[in-house]
Amino acid sequence: MKKYFSENEWQIIENGFDPQFHESAESIFSIGNGKMGQRGMFEEQYSGKSLQGSYVAGVYYPDKTRVGWWKNGYPEYFAKVLNSPNWIGMNIEIENECLDLAKVKVSNFKRVLDMQHGLLQRSFHAELSGGKQIAVNVERFVSATHDEIACIRYQITPINFSGKLNWSNYVDGLVKNMDSNYDEIFWDRVAEEAIGNHVAIQVKTKKLDFSVAAGFEIKCFENDQLQEQIAISSKPWVASADWQLQMKQGNTYTVERFVGVVSSLNYSSDSLLKACRKNTQQAVALGYDALRQMQMEYWKNIWSHCDIKIDGDVAAQQGIRFNIFQLSQTYTGVDERLNIGPKGFTGEKYGGSTYWDTEAYCIPFYLGTSDPKIAKQLLNYRFKQLPKAIENASKLGFVKGAALYPMVTMNGEECHNEWEITFEEIHRNGAIAFAIYNYENYTADLSYRAEGGAEVLTGIARFWAQRITWSENKKQYVMLGVTGPNEYENNINNNWYTNYIACWCLKYTSQVLAEWKQSDASAYNAFAAKVEFDEVTELTKWKHIFDNMFFPFDENANVFLQQEGYLDKEQMLASDLKPSERPINQHWSWDRILRSCFIKQADVLQGLFLFENHFDLATLKNNFDFYEPRTVHESSLSPCIHVIQAAKLGYQEKAYELYLRTSRLDLDDYNHEVHEGLHITSMAGTWMAVVMGFGGMRVVDGALSFAPMMPKQWKGFSFTICFKGAVIKVQVKDQNVDLSLVSGNPLTVKLFEEKVQLN
Amino acid sequence: MKKYFSENEWQIIENGFDPQFHESAESIFSIGNGKMGQRGMFEEQYSGKSLQGSYVAGVYYPDKTRVGWWKNGYPEYFAKVLNSPNWIGMNIEIENECLDLAKVKVSNFKRVLDMQHGLLQRSFHAELSGGKQIAVNVERFVSATHDEIACIRYQITPINFSGKLNWSNYVDGLVKNMDSNYDEIFWDRVAEEAIGNHVAIQVKTKKLDFSVAAGFEIKCFENDQLQEQIAISSKPWVASADWQLQMKQGNTYTVERFVGVVSSLNYSSDSLLKACRKNTQQAVALGYDALRQMQMEYWKNIWSHCDIKIDGDVAAQQGIRFNIFQLSQTYTGVDERLNIGPKGFTGEKYGGSTYWDTEAYCIPFYLGTSDPKIAKQLLNYRFKQLPKAIENASKLGFVKGAALYPMVTMNGEECHNEWEITFEEIHRNGAIAFAIYNYENYTADLSYRAEGGAEVLTGIARFWAQRITWSENKKQYVMLGVTGPNEYENNINNNWYTNYIACWCLKYTSQVLAEWKQSDASAYNAFAAKVEFDEVTELTKWKHIFDNMFFPFDENANVFLQQEGYLDKEQMLASDLKPSERPINQHWSWDRILRSCFIKQADVLQGLFLFENHFDLATLKNNFDFYEPRTVHESSLSPCIHVIQAAKLGYQEKAYELYLRTSRLDLDDYNHEVHEGLHITSMAGTWMAVVMGFGGMRVVDGALSFAPMMPKQWKGFSFTICFKGAVIKVQVKDQNVDLSLVSGNPLTVKLFEEKVQLN
Repeated sequence: MKKYFSENEWQIIENGFDPQFHESAESIFSIGNGKMGQRGMFEEQYSGKSLQGSYVAGVYYPDKTRVGWWKNGYPEYFAKVLNSPNWIGMNIEIENECLDLAKVKVSNFKRVLDMQHGLLQRSFHAELSGGKQIAVNVERFVSATHDEIACIRYQITPINFSGKLNWSNYVDGLVKNMDSNYDEIFWDRVAEEAIGNHVAIQVKTKKLDFSVAAGFEIKCFENDQLQEQIAISSKPWVASADWQLQMKQGNTYTVERFVGVVSSLNYSSDSLLKACRKNTQQAVALGYDALRQMQMEYWKNIWSHCDIKIDGDVAAQQGIRFNIFQLSQTYTGVDERLNIGPKGFTGEKYGGSTYWDTEAYCIPFYLGTSDPKIAKQLLNYRFKQLPKAIENASKLGFVKGAALYPMVTMNGEECHNEWEITFEEIHRNGAIAFAIYNYENYTADLSYRAEGGAEVLTGIARFWAQRITWSENKKQYVMLGVTGPNEYENNINNNWYTNYIACWCLKYTSQVLAEWKQSDASAYNAFAAKVEFDEVTELTKWKHIFDNMFFPFDENANVFLQQEGYLDKEQMLASDLKPSERPINQHWSWDRILRSCFIKQADVLQGLFLFENHFDLATLKNNFDFYEPRTVHESSLSPCIHVIQAAKLGYQEKAYELYLRTSRLDLDDYNHEVHEGLHITSMAGTWMAVVMGFGGMRVVDGALSFAPMMPKQWKGFSFTICFKGAVIKVQVKDQNVDLSLVSGNPLTVKLFEEKVQLN
Repeated sequence: MKKYFSENEWQIIENGFDPQFHESAESIFSIGNGKMGQRGMFEEQYSGKSLQGSYVAGVYYPDKTRVGWWKNGYPEYFAKVLNSPNWIGMNIEIENECLDLAKVKVSNFKRVLDMQHGLLQRSFHAELSGGKQIAVNVERFVSATHDEIACIRYQITPINFSGKLNWSNYVDGLVKNMDSNYDEIFWDRVAEEAIGNHVAIQVKTKKLDFSVAAGFEIKCFENDQLQEQIAISSKPWVASADWQLQMKQGNTYTVERFVGVVSSLNYSSDSLLKACRKNTQQAVALGYDALRQMQMEYWKNIWSHCDIKIDGDVAAQQGIRFNIFQLSQTYTGVDERLNIGPKGFTGEKYGGSTYWDTEAYCIPFYLGTSDPKIAKQLLNYRFKQLPKAIENASKLGFVKGAALYPMVTMNGEECHNEWEITFEEIHRNGAIAFAIYNYENYTADLSYRAEGGAEVLTGIARFWAQRITWSENKKQYVMLGVTGPNEYENNINNNWYTNYIACWCLKYTSQVLAEWKQSDASAYNAFAAKVEFDEVTELTKWKHIFDNMFFPFDENANVFLQQEGYLDKEQMLASDLKPSERPINQHWSWDRILRSCFIKQADVLQGLFLFENHFDLATLKNNFDFYEPRTVHESSLSPCIHVIQAAKLGYQEKAYELYLRTSRLDLDDYNHEVHEGLHITSMAGTWMAVVMGFGGMRVVDGALSFAPMMPKQWKGFSFTICFKGAVIKVQVKDQNVDLSLVSGNPLTVKLFEEKVQLN
């Protein structure tokens, strides 16, 4: 799909309609507001290939899991992101002919995602039978200011004929997940209503009793003249508002649709239809233009603190803005029950909403660009789920409040379905602790400790203290049977990254608890009593572990070993692979991948990224020079980390090459899978690649520093950073770096090792 | 279920009916003839819990596989043993009341498996409403002499009343697998027929087009008087023969059913109903008593060369005979397309028909007890599937004729559905080579080499030569990412057993090819041309591997290491486990099991069993003393190997304890799972436990030896052994061992290291 969309600084533009890219374009043109979202599919009927997807945040389905042989401790279900009522549907019949872009002749097709203003637009000419031509203009948005409201304005102009139009607008609750393990419908019908100008339906999940209601009112116009002859009706699953009329050549016929979508997360099930109606009434009262104006202002404000500007490289500029736009419309931080699914509101693959991506990638983005409240909500999310994390660990046999956060979850329960990930990719627990460290580091706000952070850290530390075992053979502590970030290795012993972050967790938790005891003994004591913290025994054990842990290292190669035995593998480089074999996960058997030395994503290097300040530059260089050539970057989470390190090491070309790959991963569909949805969480990695990579930004021990370097393809770039209540603007142009304080109190930062005072 | 069945030397007896054990009893009372078989369920309707299972050898279904995330190289289907038309069904209505043992009052219930004669018998009294009493006697058998025929004789005597009897006899094709991944029916209806006295149905699998027809004729008697008033009929899926009559108190009413079961393995689909009819007609012509007499004679002959007699220990005697009986009725060696499923005809779990159990356990049994033709058929089976084994390997990325035999198969394609087994439990390839060695060793018949054996060995050797890789780090060859026989470890490096058997395969193949070239150069050359054998390069590579292979060994413990890193695990002994935690696979999470040191089944010790003669007794003792206490024997294949080694090492108590566990595994339901079916293949291990364990029999380099030792619980034991065309009888009583030649040419064997000439 490379270069299917036009390059533009603020817009994604599809010029001309090519059905083979339609599902990919649906993903790219997705819109949302944190509470709901939708792929960029057509409103009118379309009989070509399409993934019709509308999603409501926090509404999921516990699909029966699918494993070869179920074993004790395996999760019993796999939470699926739930395709929800379709609220954009319409059938447009012109002289008894259905408007269907798979069947009519289409010209002047243009679909635009206006990222600056949060609007999705489309226009085209269609030629119907007998040469009848119409012009169509459509705009829709999911309101960011009124998050249970969405609007559509759909306009038809008959160019060279007059004739009958039968325009049926409907909302449909009988929606099927593309991703269903046993090909089941997940919804039950509850009710439909058609009252006055308002139509709506309510459905309920077959399990867990989530309810969703969606409905709308329409306003119809001939040119500017409001029309009244609308017929409303309902049948099982569907409610409709139909407009029948005689079109006159040259006139424009408009339907404005004011949609309300509500769920039982926020209302009782029996008041849902009422809540839906209230939203549509409010939308009608405000009117399309007012809601549109508020939408544009909301996005203007977002960009004022999130934007990254790149001069002289439109592709790079478009890429980074697309990432920031998608992230900002996926999660807004208003609801602590929500999180950031790997595909957001853009597809169904992977299921669940929460991976370690949130802590490792998204939290730095939200910390750097937004009010700390947003990141804090993500921390709260994990605290609320601590009891489930303790339950997860206890199902596996861990005791005494040890907490293992799930690999994938909706409500805190594990729902991934491969033991080699579920039980073994446990470094995620470390990322959750590291996010707390990051939060305190960026904000200097220590409040989370008392609000649950200390409990989260203690649960995690207790897990590590049991999961790490003493090897009488080595006379050191070891961690056996894990999967590191590089998922092309399973069930390995002593993954350096996991061992390292586990020990760091034990140290950091010890330190936080000591500080807290010092600063607020009574709160600390209440906590210790609540979690039955056996201070002396537990702290002593933790220290004995981090003082005596085994870390695999190879003297010859002078690198940390990804795992014990890694060098027994046949050593090859990614450059030895034929292009036709890549990505290897599409061309090689899993057997071959597992036994190869190839690395899916940063693993040792992920550790050197998080803990860069623990090591000298030579160590980073040795390990990067060894591991980068063995890394195939077949995870969207991989290239960004390498960009940051390549930039640090002065490998400018490598940094730029990997940056383009990460920032335009979806726009250029590097992995041939964008039709399944966007890689939302890795978009935060792209932000890190610019800010930490080219901007050289670091936040270490509460101090902010910059060391920018600019790709030679760029003329300049700038971004803003939120730090301890201040907003700092960084502008790089030619050889100059300009730092300025946009808001907040004066502070000192470092630029290339020199202190700079910002006033 | 311990001791639910009465101890008896020749029979399994259930005295009294306890519904909670009914499904287990159905497994125990299974009957078969190699071509078809059936669980021991009731003929008449039974509304309690039951697994109604009838199976036809070689008829299977490619069920859609169930995995978490499908990856390249994963098998696409899982072959299911197929529950087939139920040909025993009857509804018995007495005065409009249905005879259903879950609903009536049952007394004097007795169910007997007469192993000496291959008959299943049942008798009981039932009290119906109003105190009406009947006596019932049933006998059925699956004919061993006419392997498409089965017979039932069902007799009812009203004891204290006269009344109406409506006796409907049916065959039902609408049968559902208990084991179905997506809860589907696997059969399509083809036809039913009701012609003359004959009723039958034909069904066809929804995939692969296997057809099965089953039908019968009945003969009805009042006392000895043949009755004629039978009404036949059919409806979709079902055909029936109904007998309505007025019973008179004290008279006996008998239905003899003559069943034919045929499949498209042996007939064209459109001649199946005819073939079925031909069988039922033949059965009717022979008559029940004649068929029964032939059945008894067949089994008399089987026992004459298979029996093991144990004096003074009825439980042990019953156990070993039950094993021999089940093995003998599961596989008869008449059809090279068939093999020995882990549950035979007794249940559906595990799917597939062929595991490495066949070569590692069953072939020694058939070699030792039967005409070599039977074992040869099992070797032929693998040769016929060599092209599929090469295809399996090539799907994983292996080249040049490398063959990886599947872990589970029906037709040669892999159909197991866990990567850690499918790709990794590759030692099975070694067992298949070892079976060839065993065959030649027991029979002195080298004909299989030229008939395909050399090709099989070469394909296997080529696989090892690619699967083993050079470690530049160790400067030795290594084998990474395997699962050994101990499936409580996955994806380990350098499993000692797998490394050892792989190198043995390379050596043995080199030796066989050299001998063959010597003995028949032209045949050898034709083979070499056919498989494009690059003699110098390949043999040199193989030798370089087996001369430079890494074998993990621990100096301190002085044992071969099950795998690299095994001693980094926390070392515990099985005796440290609480009884409530065992079996650990029912009480521990898979995570905990994988990371524990506990061993599911013989692994290093499996190697020392196969290659005992390569090592001295001290090595066996060191390794046994180390590994046996860590082994939890949660595979049915495990205890028998330990019995043999314990006996060799003089650990008499341990040997006897483990022997009882293996020989009465199903009868006493040690693992609480016998309701799912019997452990057919491990029954061959039980035979080995007696003959190789207590009998001390070995066949090494073509020489036969014995070194009996008798458990103190026994008064004596005896068995016969087939060896190079001779049959040798071994009798042990008190301190005496008596060897005699039953048939065949004189030969020399060793007894306790002394040569004995048998004439």
